Amino acid sequence: MNRTIDLNADLGEGFGPYKLGDDVALLGIVTSANVACGFHAGDPEVMHETFTVARKLGVAIGAHPGFDDRTHFGRRILPLTIGEIERIVAYQIGAACGIASLAGHRVTYVKAHGALYNLACDDEAVARAVARAIKAVDKSLLCLTLVGTAGERGALAEGVIVAAEIFADRAYNPDGKLVPRGVEGAVLHDQKIICSRVLAMLEEGSIIATDGTRFPTRMDSICLHGDTPGAVAVATSLRTALIGAGYHLASFAPLPS
Amino acid sequence: MNRTIDLNADLGEGFGPYKLGDDVALLGIVTSANVACGFHAGDPEVMHETFTVARKLGVAIGAHPGFDDRTHFGRRILPLTIGEIERIVAYQIGAACGIASLAGHRVTYVKAHGALYNLACDDEAVARAVARAIKAVDKSLLCLTLVGTAGERGALAEGVIVAAEIFADRAYNPDGKLVPRGVEGAVLHDQKIICSRVLAMLEEGSIIATDGTRFPTRMDSICLHGDTPGAVAVATSLRTALIGAGYHLASFAPLPS
Amino acid sequence: MNRTIDLNADLGEGFGPYKLGDDVALLGIVTSANVACGFHAGDPEVMHETFTVARKLGVAIGAHPGFDDRTHFGRRILPLTIGEIERIVAYQIGAACGIASLAGHRVTYVKAHGALYNLACDDEAVARAVARAIKAVDKSLLCLTLVGTAGERGALAEGVIVAAEIFADRAYNPDGKLVPRGVEGAVLHDQKIICSRVLAMLEEGSIIATDGTRFPTRMDSICLHGDTPGAVAVATSLRTALIGAGYHLASFAPLPS
Amino acid sequence: MNRTIDLNADLGEGFGPYKLGDDVALLGIVTSANVACGFHAGDPEVMHETFTVARKLGVAIGAHPGFDDRTHFGRRILPLTIGEIERIVAYQIGAACGIASLAGHRVTYVKAHGALYNLACDDEAVARAVARAIKAVDKSLLCLTLVGTAGERGALAEGVIVAAEIFADRAYNPDGKLVPRGVEGAVLHDQKIICSRVLAMLEEGSIIATDGTRFPTRMDSICLHGDTPGAVAVATSLRTALIGAGYHLASFAPLPS
Repeated sequence: MNRTIDLNADLGEGFGPYKLGDDVALLGIVTSANVACGFHAGDPEVMHETFTVARKLGVAIGAHPGFDDRTHFGRRILPLTIGEIERIVAYQIGAACGIASLAGHRVTYVKAHGALYNLACDDEAVARAVARAIKAVDKSLLCLTLVGTAGERGALAEGVIVAAEIFADRAYNPDGKLVPRGVEGAVLHDQKIICSRVLAMLEEGSIIATDGTRFPTRMDSICLHGDTPGAVAVATSLRTALIGAGYHLASFAPLPS
Repeated sequence: MNRTIDLNADLGEGFGPYKLGDDVALLGIVTSANVACGFHAGDPEVMHETFTVARKLGVAIGAHPGFDDRTHFGRRILPLTIGEIERIVAYQIGAACGIASLAGHRVTYVKAHGALYNLACDDEAVARAVARAIKAVDKSLLCLTLVGTAGERGALAEGVIVAAEIFADRAYNPDGKLVPRGVEGAVLHDQKIICSRVLAMLEEGSIIATDGTRFPTRMDSICLHGDTPGAVAVATSLRTALIGAGYHLASFAPLPS
Repeated sequence: MNRTIDLNADLGEGFGPYKLGDDVALLGIVTSANVACGFHAGDPEVMHETFTVARKLGVAIGAHPGFDDRTHFGRRILPLTIGEIERIVAYQIGAACGIASLAGHRVTYVKAHGALYNLACDDEAVARAVARAIKAVDKSLLCLTLVGTAGERGALAEGVIVAAEIFADRAYNPDGKLVPRGVEGAVLHDQKIICSRVLAMLEEGSIIATDGTRFPTRMDSICLHGDTPGAVAVATSLRTALIGAGYHLASFAPLPS
Repeated sequence: MNRTIDLNADLGEGFGPYKLGDDVALLGIVTSANVACGFHAGDPEVMHETFTVARKLGVAIGAHPGFDDRTHFGRRILPLTIGEIERIVAYQIGAACGIASLAGHRVTYVKAHGALYNLACDDEAVARAVARAIKAVDKSLLCLTLVGTAGERGALAEGVIVAAEIFADRAYNPDGKLVPRGVEGAVLHDQKIICSRVLAMLEEGSIIATDGTRFPTRMDSICLHGDTPGAVAVATSLRTALIGAGYHLASFAPLPS
């Protein structure tokens, strides 16, 4: 049985004078950081700083491309063609790789952000566009996504290695999909419930839906949210609970030695 | 004696609905294309299209990073720190590499654009920042710049290989520097004068200033302008003149075979 | 019978170094100029220059707000709420009024641009949002739109005065709507056909669809396109044809004396 | 003796998902709100919300135009011409007036932001450009600035009415100018010192420099900072101190009744 697990969070989501979440604290907790690439959030300065701290703390970094829409934080689906999506993703991954190199670190995976992530999970053509961009920029990059979705199928169809994540603080519908944000109960806030649910899902190797339905799945990583109130406390307690339960925390996407 | 010479031009300077210059025609003439990276001009679509055509025509491609200022086309010096310049250059080179990979091509050199180019030629700290960004992203990338300037010294100080360019249609002051745009006579328009001056400079291995002063220099490439009226005609006549004079046209930065 | 008619065109669609269409020529032909407000196209410099020339030539000016999407020129529907549309329209009208004042001119009407225009013609809630923004900024502003659409109904429902336009060079479907761009024959290019069709529509007071169906409608203005090849020639010939047929050309939205 | 004084602060400086400062709390304290116009900070949503709350609380609103540079929050001088500054200021004032109308409020004054404010205080040509923009958009708008500077002289030279502000928490050099940010002691943080210094300056009708030098000046308003830690506490204590000392708090720029 695999007792190694990864904790990932979206980081580097500030911009210019603006901060979002406590990046430094979270980089001390997670093992993989999904770093915004300057389209929906982040900028070269924030990226460089985030990559630098991640390198010092031994945290793996992933490019976190999103729609070019700072105003709505990449949370709305923009009307792009499949080809345009492929290009904006390749652009952002490349930019992240460039800044990571300057920071002495290396991008080892990609996770789409927000509306792009959701769209890829629903629409295999989008997932394949993201995967083609990943593959073109660097064949060794993994794609972090939701298993059992079009997001996984599209990546696999393009020959990209998939890492599977579950969500620590998001409720799952009886069909195995995330309860959409905005629906009552979509986001969990109680630390104890979050920790015990994650441990149960890991032990059972299954996503547990709100009605108790189990969906067996691979689990390479647990996604935390960095920008919710109490994010650091939740992350800390989950990390402690995982270690207490005998898990070894390490990125699914280690740097080649 | 080296009878091989490169022709370079700034291309891919459109944006969204806007065109600037006749990229397709010029890609049939030049041997190296400096492609805007989405900060001062260009966008992922324009970059991808330019790289794709360049690949088909065997034209080498360089990342052409500039200040983040579409409104003024990267022609004004923005008040950035040295570190910030380093980061925006690394970001843009990385992005260009990402899109080039998607287009099946590969970035083999970097040339700073507009005000950033001029600033690097005047200020070695800026030139070194650009060079550090180049080196960090890909040690094999060349830096195309003006020899005999801080731009060259900075690149060399950082261990980046320099390719030297002369300007086909820009007048040189008696001190060997370019006559600033805006000054009467700064830009040459007469095809015959342009061709005969370039040939003379190549034969003599010297820049020829407006007062006839010679400045011996390496010459790896001749810079053409793609966005002036008659750009294609000038480029065509220069290409013809060079071939007629026995020069072999090839990029200074060929793809590794 | 009203023998006065207005010619309008979208102008001021350049941006920074980019030009689109021959604004100066068209400002000598039209009687009303729809001027981009810096969201889908235009910027404070282009707006100021366009308003200044319009003032000198006695051309009425309209604010021409669009989606905040230079890359796609405001031609794609962005996922905004009704309230957000109201706010971006008010912002753009206000900005246009500010620049117009500086140029010694005055905005007297509003015409939504591209995807926002089409959306307002299809969705009365959008049309009402646009109308509320118009009314809030300046109650005396007219709304130029397609009669017989939700665009007109929404404006009227909010108490905004509507001016009705027909399209000189766009084909109409048998249901009275525009043939969508991209469909074969959607845009007419033949000057003679354009002129004779416009004159026929004016004489009959009816839109004439591709199958000959007539849709009686008010006609306050004829919309020309400024960015198509041959735009100036088409505009010139239509102006000449209208004057030849006895029409007096004047804006539907004159400045108060 | 005039015992009425205004408290102003920069508000509405968030953007999309980002917050900056506690706008709602500060709008309960100040009598005039300088609201960012979407160039250095703010967007149509933030502006509309800020204006709406200001209207409900009876707080006067000023347009707060800045350089178009979200990344550096308008704190760096961009290389614009005098004419370009005039246009970006007119654009932003107009946009603010548009959104204010939609929110049922009205812009009654203008205060330049950050680097533009400082530049106008140093360079009368810039101050005149700002003033011409103000005057063009609405002759009744006041200009809030530092008296005794080029900012004041430029506004007066253009016939714009000036309101004079002092800074509650910024130290003044022996020459009467602000100690630049970044210099030790430039920003005061101790509530008691801030309150007693402001009261002393008001009583004496003089700016008090760090070395005790007095600069007699008009004082129409006291500028607070909304985005420093403890901003709300400082603002609250100053408001309380002023009322305790018998001052009536009211905007220098009331709405016409």
